[in-house]
Amino acid sequence: MIIVMKPNAAEASINAVVSFVQEKGLQTHLSKGDEVTIIGVIGNKSKLGDEALLRFPEVAKLVPVTESYKLANKQFHPDPSTVKVGNTEIGPNNLTIMAGPCAVETNDQLMVIAKAVKEAGATILRGGAYKPRTSPYSFQGLEEDGLKYMQEAGQATGLATICEVVSLDAINAAVKYVDMIQIGARNMQNFYLLKEAGKSGLPVLLKRGLCATIDEWLNAAEYIIAEGNPNVVLCERGIRTYETATRNTLDLSAVPVLREKTHLPIIVDPSHSTGNYLYVPPMAKAAVACNADGLMIEVHNDPAHALSDGPQSLTFDNFSKLTKELRPFTQIVGRKF
Amino acid sequence: MIIVMKPNAAEASINAVVSFVQEKGLQTHLSKGDEVTIIGVIGNKSKLGDEALLRFPEVAKLVPVTESYKLANKQFHPDPSTVKVGNTEIGPNNLTIMAGPCAVETNDQLMVIAKAVKEAGATILRGGAYKPRTSPYSFQGLEEDGLKYMQEAGQATGLATICEVVSLDAINAAVKYVDMIQIGARNMQNFYLLKEAGKSGLPVLLKRGLCATIDEWLNAAEYIIAEGNPNVVLCERGIRTYETATRNTLDLSAVPVLREKTHLPIIVDPSHSTGNYLYVPPMAKAAVACNADGLMIEVHNDPAHALSDGPQSLTFDNFSKLTKELRPFTQIVGRKF
Amino acid sequence: MIIVMKPNAAEASINAVVSFVQEKGLQTHLSKGDEVTIIGVIGNKSKLGDEALLRFPEVAKLVPVTESYKLANKQFHPDPSTVKVGNTEIGPNNLTIMAGPCAVETNDQLMVIAKAVKEAGATILRGGAYKPRTSPYSFQGLEEDGLKYMQEAGQATGLATICEVVSLDAINAAVKYVDMIQIGARNMQNFYLLKEAGKSGLPVLLKRGLCATIDEWLNAAEYIIAEGNPNVVLCERGIRTYETATRNTLDLSAVPVLREKTHLPIIVDPSHSTGNYLYVPPMAKAAVACNADGLMIEVHNDPAHALSDGPQSLTFDNFSKLTKELRPFTQIVGRKF
Amino acid sequence: MIIVMKPNAAEASINAVVSFVQEKGLQTHLSKGDEVTIIGVIGNKSKLGDEALLRFPEVAKLVPVTESYKLANKQFHPDPSTVKVGNTEIGPNNLTIMAGPCAVETNDQLMVIAKAVKEAGATILRGGAYKPRTSPYSFQGLEEDGLKYMQEAGQATGLATICEVVSLDAINAAVKYVDMIQIGARNMQNFYLLKEAGKSGLPVLLKRGLCATIDEWLNAAEYIIAEGNPNVVLCERGIRTYETATRNTLDLSAVPVLREKTHLPIIVDPSHSTGNYLYVPPMAKAAVACNADGLMIEVHNDPAHALSDGPQSLTFDNFSKLTKELRPFTQIVGRKF
Repeated sequence: MIIVMKPNAAEASINAVVSFVQEKGLQTHLSKGDEVTIIGVIGNKSKLGDEALLRFPEVAKLVPVTESYKLANKQFHPDPSTVKVGNTEIGPNNLTIMAGPCAVETNDQLMVIAKAVKEAGATILRGGAYKPRTSPYSFQGLEEDGLKYMQEAGQATGLATICEVVSLDAINAAVKYVDMIQIGARNMQNFYLLKEAGKSGLPVLLKRGLCATIDEWLNAAEYIIAEGNPNVVLCERGIRTYETATRNTLDLSAVPVLREKTHLPIIVDPSHSTGNYLYVPPMAKAAVACNADGLMIEVHNDPAHALSDGPQSLTFDNFSKLTKELRPFTQIVGRKF
Repeated sequence: MIIVMKPNAAEASINAVVSFVQEKGLQTHLSKGDEVTIIGVIGNKSKLGDEALLRFPEVAKLVPVTESYKLANKQFHPDPSTVKVGNTEIGPNNLTIMAGPCAVETNDQLMVIAKAVKEAGATILRGGAYKPRTSPYSFQGLEEDGLKYMQEAGQATGLATICEVVSLDAINAAVKYVDMIQIGARNMQNFYLLKEAGKSGLPVLLKRGLCATIDEWLNAAEYIIAEGNPNVVLCERGIRTYETATRNTLDLSAVPVLREKTHLPIIVDPSHSTGNYLYVPPMAKAAVACNADGLMIEVHNDPAHALSDGPQSLTFDNFSKLTKELRPFTQIVGRKF
Repeated sequence: MIIVMKPNAAEASINAVVSFVQEKGLQTHLSKGDEVTIIGVIGNKSKLGDEALLRFPEVAKLVPVTESYKLANKQFHPDPSTVKVGNTEIGPNNLTIMAGPCAVETNDQLMVIAKAVKEAGATILRGGAYKPRTSPYSFQGLEEDGLKYMQEAGQATGLATICEVVSLDAINAAVKYVDMIQIGARNMQNFYLLKEAGKSGLPVLLKRGLCATIDEWLNAAEYIIAEGNPNVVLCERGIRTYETATRNTLDLSAVPVLREKTHLPIIVDPSHSTGNYLYVPPMAKAAVACNADGLMIEVHNDPAHALSDGPQSLTFDNFSKLTKELRPFTQIVGRKF
Repeated sequence: MIIVMKPNAAEASINAVVSFVQEKGLQTHLSKGDEVTIIGVIGNKSKLGDEALLRFPEVAKLVPVTESYKLANKQFHPDPSTVKVGNTEIGPNNLTIMAGPCAVETNDQLMVIAKAVKEAGATILRGGAYKPRTSPYSFQGLEEDGLKYMQEAGQATGLATICEVVSLDAINAAVKYVDMIQIGARNMQNFYLLKEAGKSGLPVLLKRGLCATIDEWLNAAEYIIAEGNPNVVLCERGIRTYETATRNTLDLSAVPVLREKTHLPIIVDPSHSTGNYLYVPPMAKAAVACNADGLMIEVHNDPAHALSDGPQSLTFDNFSKLTKELRPFTQIVGRKF
């Protein structure tokens, strides 16, 4: 960490900071400029408490020089990770397509959708059994029944399965039925849930929070990995901005930024981010082109009657057309699909 | 709800929409303009599914005309609510000051702070026992021990007490020791936790999410009230914007906006929003001036050694000076303090 | 326009609104729901003044049903436009690459860069002669000398040329030397400059403002076209969000959204949006994949010594490698390059 | 400036950076930590070019330690400035109220409004003669005629006058008729206009851009002052966020932040920021409470028929009631009004 003093800080103020740091068992290194003195801190800064130094007179700012996440950090794990999910893998060699309905509605519906997405090239079936909804009066999901239907559809088609979890109860149920769990955007900093997901033993898809910075996202992944579960996959799903023409703003540049910072695989969700089925195919192609490891796409047999997120779901025809159109892109980027 | 068709939509497209709506048991009302036809939907729109109508050819947009929250809505409850917390009340007659450390660190520390904030005019002691932290390697709170210290400090001083909860376990513990629970910004859309808070029977302080719209916030309150717990207090604590000179951007205009939309009391937190003790007093005064029902302020006996949020904590002297300066403002707005 | 009344609005309030609208020579169409009455307004809403109806008692909100931009609107011009710039064209058949330095520094430098970008496949040379800089103490550009160097480099290489303009003086100079002018992000709502750009007769590249919605952007384009100049090209260059890992957040979903709303060609600038040369190639590929009509990329012979925007500039080698890698993507999307 | 190297950067990389800096005539100061080396740069960093050092291998980031604005900086001018406008002053002793219509519509209308706002306590008359409008088809202002009406209304009432300018032509006209010019939010980074405003000799009200950081705002002020015109007043008018319940989000915490950074007076505009007359009074009181030097408020004789911004304009009664309610707040903060 670097401590930047205010311009022309008094000698006494500088000495007080230096003493405080040294008393905590850390070393300091002074550098005096024309106007400004900076103090380099050498050692484990967690001994100093959170930014408490800002309370010292004439301290202007603190500049961290190392990231707080370690296990998710590419610096200590330069090679890209591959995460096994059921009988498939998410990582640098594949383009993984997760597809299915926003919400599991009935067993029959799910079976029909599972067959269609498998046919078109998906390897993981997605479907929500626990739905976090803005209003308490909206459909909240089938819960454990939904998980059972997911298992049956997975077994019937050979697809791996993923479901969102929203509580410890949901994790405990999910462990019995599905291959991967998802932490949704609204729970990205539900640290209690992250720890429980870490303990579950299942691979975890961690969606980016609607207003999470990339560093906060990687720290959230760190919570999961720190519980002994390295099988974390990140999913960019759009951030909140002032633009209202799309539901959220898909931040595709997060893909190359994450490649510099972490070894974890990266999935892109063009459905939730855009909120409009018309925009899903172009953004799916863009995601492949900038080297995402996979896509999560909502597909529904009858979007106009879907219980949630109808406007952004692809029909079977839309989805099948899209996966065909994606194939040449996957060839260019050298991924199996 | 109003359905706006695309300009010059075909008769057949309009008829298809009308039929769909009527089949669901709702009435329609057509209005044809020069270019655009609009269809008014009369009845309970939840029968239609989420925006599924956007999938119909030539539907341009859907415009909701009623809010989805009911119990939190001023329309059905015009008078402002008062919420009892221990031996004090939050509502239109008081200026309630909640003060205390970001995190409970030791029993002695808490007792010293409790006495100081009581002396200066606070009626509720705040203190974190379960700390949601960005990094898993930061101090996570004393958990149940912290709650016990809160109870002791409350009993010793006569202050009511409030603690943040982050899980069902934390709620179950909090019920034993404190007078009010807090749902933090990161959990504002942790709907599972909201429901459990609703069932707890304790009054709930619901902080606004970092990127939550006011409507989402009121829907989150609705989750709690819908479980039979009307004692919800809202807390504005800053939203995330591009500005970096403050930790977050305090959205004080949320106070008058909420006054138009809801009967629930409104608290402002100038500490977390600004992230800097220098900015706490002016923003506290501004909050009182725009008619907030109370303030939540971080106070610490030794901010430079605080285990969290040192930069924004007031010293005892700062806090005592602030409450003195607040008194004339509270007289103007006609609140007891 | 639709006028939504507040729930249970009084008959007198509804009548007052209806009378006001009819006095302005417009027709109304009433639709009464269980709680809410809506009033459709038929005719040219500009007669009503800006949202003045919100001042009537019990008017809840106004919902526009048609866009205010007409000449830029795809509805009245369904086929995509092609804009000629010097000896090249921007439109649905090509992938146009504009490349060059952020700022023109010397004649020699520009000539070297022009040859390199031509060699690698660019057809338009970009280079700033008037630089809008955050600080008055930063390099502000060579002004008219810079334009002359652009002309010389264009003539020597056969490249068309584009320069940003910041004032009427700059437009008057640019008309003498370059093939296309650019309105930068900070001037997107400098309506005076937009009108002058419209009168200049040159094709105009209109960058999106840092916090402009897509509708505001199209209205800005409307200002130019309304002066009789249909040759407008839009350029997405990133919007401002809370994320700091990139300079701005490239909103690639603007590309498909614009395709639904306008016939104007769309260029993507991965250099200014990301602010980091490492992120330029993946975002350039993504832009091609989602069907942008072209790219604007900063290239510099010696980025470490560039007078501005060094961190995001590609070296000749980087740029040449990128254009090679882009070719298979352009084949898939069916564009010449 | 501080250069932070990547963890475990090679000796050769560090040396290359040091050499580059020293060749530019600046001194360096090395500080080696366990993982990270930092290099302090002593001297005028403008010699280094814009962040070009980021192109050196293994440079992780650059941290500025001094602000780029000097003349606007409190560090070099600790006492608050007072700006004379006609026969009144904006500064630490007064609460200055600027009031009037969004747009000047007719001479009669303006005269009526001027008398009403004078009567209620305003000392500066505001009124737009050049209106920057999102759509080219909206009312664009009376231009020079509007300025003449402003002069007449000012002379008749004794009020000082302020008008927005949008071009050099507008500045040249304004100099003849009004006491102060305004640079609007959309032109905050129209650097050409800022320089011309600086040369005009008139005091300048500089509104914050919709997505401008406080540092960018102060750099924009620096452009004006650097032309020899120290009479700059800042006006916070709301920033763009995802929240849609208000037109923009009024960032009142900008007031105390600016107090730490600059000596320039600060005005708050609760009208444009909230976009709703109901929210103007509470936010005006909040602005006074957090120690703003003044307010800019839209007042109209007949808001429902206003040619622009009707929804946010106060009636004469609203305005008169507000100024009465403001008086006790101004007494507490010790300002004349």
